[in-house]
Amino acid sequence: MTTDGRAPTGGRLDPEDWEAFRATCHRAVDGLVDWWADVRGRPVWRPVPDGVKAALAVPPPKQGMALDEVHALFERLVLPYPTGNTHPRFMGWVHGSGTPAGALAELLAGALDANLGGREHAPIHVERQVIEWSRRIFGFPEGTSGLLVSGTSMATLIALAAARQAHADGDVRREGLGTGRYRLVGYASAEAHSSAAKAFELLGLGREALRPVPVDAGYRMDVEALRPMIAADRASGLQPFCVVGTAGTVNLGAIDDLDAIAGVCREEALWMHVDGAFGAVAVLVPDLAPRLAGIERANSLAFDFHKWLHVPYDAGCVLIRDERAHRAAFAARPDYLAGAERGLAGGEPWFCEYGPELSRGFRALKVWFTLLTHGLDRLGAAVAENCAQARYLGGRVAATPELELLAPVSLNIACFRFNNAPAADLDDLNARIVVELHERGIAAPSTTRVDGRLAIRACLCNHRTERADLDALVDGVLALGRTLRHGAAARE
Amino acid sequence: MTTDGRAPTGGRLDPEDWEAFRATCHRAVDGLVDWWADVRGRPVWRPVPDGVKAALAVPPPKQGMALDEVHALFERLVLPYPTGNTHPRFMGWVHGSGTPAGALAELLAGALDANLGGREHAPIHVERQVIEWSRRIFGFPEGTSGLLVSGTSMATLIALAAARQAHADGDVRREGLGTGRYRLVGYASAEAHSSAAKAFELLGLGREALRPVPVDAGYRMDVEALRPMIAADRASGLQPFCVVGTAGTVNLGAIDDLDAIAGVCREEALWMHVDGAFGAVAVLVPDLAPRLAGIERANSLAFDFHKWLHVPYDAGCVLIRDERAHRAAFAARPDYLAGAERGLAGGEPWFCEYGPELSRGFRALKVWFTLLTHGLDRLGAAVAENCAQARYLGGRVAATPELELLAPVSLNIACFRFNNAPAADLDDLNARIVVELHERGIAAPSTTRVDGRLAIRACLCNHRTERADLDALVDGVLALGRTLRHGAAARE
Repeated sequence: MTTDGRAPTGGRLDPEDWEAFRATCHRAVDGLVDWWADVRGRPVWRPVPDGVKAALAVPPPKQGMALDEVHALFERLVLPYPTGNTHPRFMGWVHGSGTPAGALAELLAGALDANLGGREHAPIHVERQVIEWSRRIFGFPEGTSGLLVSGTSMATLIALAAARQAHADGDVRREGLGTGRYRLVGYASAEAHSSAAKAFELLGLGREALRPVPVDAGYRMDVEALRPMIAADRASGLQPFCVVGTAGTVNLGAIDDLDAIAGVCREEALWMHVDGAFGAVAVLVPDLAPRLAGIERANSLAFDFHKWLHVPYDAGCVLIRDERAHRAAFAARPDYLAGAERGLAGGEPWFCEYGPELSRGFRALKVWFTLLTHGLDRLGAAVAENCAQARYLGGRVAATPELELLAPVSLNIACFRFNNAPAADLDDLNARIVVELHERGIAAPSTTRVDGRLAIRACLCNHRTERADLDALVDGVLALGRTLRHGAAARE
Repeated sequence: MTTDGRAPTGGRLDPEDWEAFRATCHRAVDGLVDWWADVRGRPVWRPVPDGVKAALAVPPPKQGMALDEVHALFERLVLPYPTGNTHPRFMGWVHGSGTPAGALAELLAGALDANLGGREHAPIHVERQVIEWSRRIFGFPEGTSGLLVSGTSMATLIALAAARQAHADGDVRREGLGTGRYRLVGYASAEAHSSAAKAFELLGLGREALRPVPVDAGYRMDVEALRPMIAADRASGLQPFCVVGTAGTVNLGAIDDLDAIAGVCREEALWMHVDGAFGAVAVLVPDLAPRLAGIERANSLAFDFHKWLHVPYDAGCVLIRDERAHRAAFAARPDYLAGAERGLAGGEPWFCEYGPELSRGFRALKVWFTLLTHGLDRLGAAVAENCAQARYLGGRVAATPELELLAPVSLNIACFRFNNAPAADLDDLNARIVVELHERGIAAPSTTRVDGRLAIRACLCNHRTERADLDALVDGVLALGRTLRHGAAARE
């Protein structure tokens, strides 16, 4: 023992008793295995009780408590009230459903405690390998650079920062946009995700500088409408610099004609970015890959591992075709981050030169575990199955008189509503149906609006969902619609 | 069994054999416990062999493999070659050293697979509680908002985005900076971390718009020099909007006079941001807290849990005093993210309205586990011990004729060098000493430059370090300096 009573193999915050710690971990593993295996036995979601919120609201803890007690608090206060996306009947927003293999990887990554900002260590090479796999999956050329990030919002921010720096006629990083020299504008379909506009805001370009391009009947960018918009902006003295194509719109799963967009970008010398948050991974499905043709021509691609590839949150990726443009947007290495040819300060290039973050966790490990454990074919088969399920759901809706499909099923999303009530009540009624589906733990779709009408939106991005779960959704919507339709009007 | 042969309790990517999965997890836990407990038996760092890099570089895996095999690859290719920051003799850059409790929390968070972008579920309430604890720790007022992020770089970006929106005389998010209406400038000490300049770049303000304020003999911002700089910029038609104070400079651990900066900001109506990446948590040490006086007056604070509080990477936090200003910089909720008063779409406010990310992992859980398990007093004691160790190291350097302290030890950092060689050789010699310390696995300090001279920089941010580890560093530097000093000249 050292003079202050610590065991020689442990630090100040290490367990005093490693065997007790080991036992806690084993109990935690057993609890999780039971929790996973019993997922169908639970409601998809349940409200967080006020008593749980009150129990969480304790003052900052001056004294510690045994890890076992903390774990018991977790099992009592947190584990029973999750988002629900690990459940087979979760079909809201665009959430992946996770895997046990990914969770194990998080334990291992947490133990290693690596900072992937840079330096020379094995985790860096794991992240490089995951990016290399991504490059090959999407057909980007050798020399492509990339970065794992929290998700497509961050990936798009990074890609558009590179585009901004590459296309401005000067050094935006140094002098900023405030001089008024740069009047950069970009384009995305009217159905594009809000993350592109948020990136424009954060980059100081302003969301008005992202022009909404009209969509066609399939909710895809009308690429013919794009050309005159670019010409008009140029004629006004503005500087078009990028087009954001969408591979899988959030509302309906529409995929822009990426090849056509690439053609316009080549002619107009614009940066082509693709938001492929969930839809890009459809390239893993032979039947779907042709619909993504042209993705390999993009200057940058943003997509998520935590959605349709089920890596635990969070894990997204940006690929940038021109490594020099990527680095030019972010590289900055002051004295205290100097590299070295050898030793721990080696490992060039450091990942902190490819994005805004200097501290970066080891999220690459859960991606590496997921791809190695399941393989691309099996991951692709889960994607294909979800698309088949969406068609099945669309078919059931179409065949049911009281239900109405609000747009054709194009990928893995069905937007529909209960319509056997007065038209003026339908928005409110369907919103209430969704709340009741949640609160009764029946199913967890989300809502959106399609052409102004409130829709029940089922996004099938879940490897645990089976067709019976879709039947349960339809049955639940019908039963609730019939029960609630009179109340909807009364509440107005 | 279902028609495709899967067990009814599992999804397409769940283990076919839960007992085999359970056994793999138990083996993984046992391997980690042995790895942690034996940390002193290993070198602090070792190079990643070429054979390991080659073994990682496989094509994208079409077919999966057993999780056990993937875990075996991890144990062979990754675990033996970490950054080294879990080792007691790691003292480079500013890295926390992690805890077993934090790693366990990562397993649990990985299983829950929660997306903290919003909605109503227990993980949201855990993150809120961690932010509430942070608010109280730093003395911010009720109503303060906050967000867990990857680290101080992201936290500073978010804080300065809020400052930009709050102080521009118009809607920067909408119209951008390209009109030339906004000529925003800010101030930080010449010793400030590069993340502030990187945030200025990304926000479109340009790094030249961040003015370096001279430092005093203690490497702290010369606050008297700040006032005339602000006046000169105003006289030039520029719009001063923020001052970044530093609580713990990366090179030397200097803490700006935050109370004086707060006074200037109040008089000049500027946003005060504090970069407290590692140094802010010194408020947990009664002897050190007075040096941070004024931190509670800031408009925003960025700090890390993964540094001096040893939460596994990554985990930082931003606090923003004016919740409305925070939300005004980021809120955007399209139809597909509509909230609801009840159900899973409840949980207002959603965290995605406080930052650029819509997908956000459950990093709050590892913070919650760390604070509950260890308690603030014990975490503070580890901080205090590191500061005492830095003074001890400074004393040993000062008492050793061949070594030279390059700046006084002010917090937890000692910058020194071996100086028993011709002056022209010293930069190269000390850089080589550090490489050799790494490659021999003796100790892992980093390097920086202090007043132009290359320094060996020991940043004590490690709960496993003991004084004997500092003696090993000093002995190693002396032995290597004496061995290498002739070679250094020969290499030039």
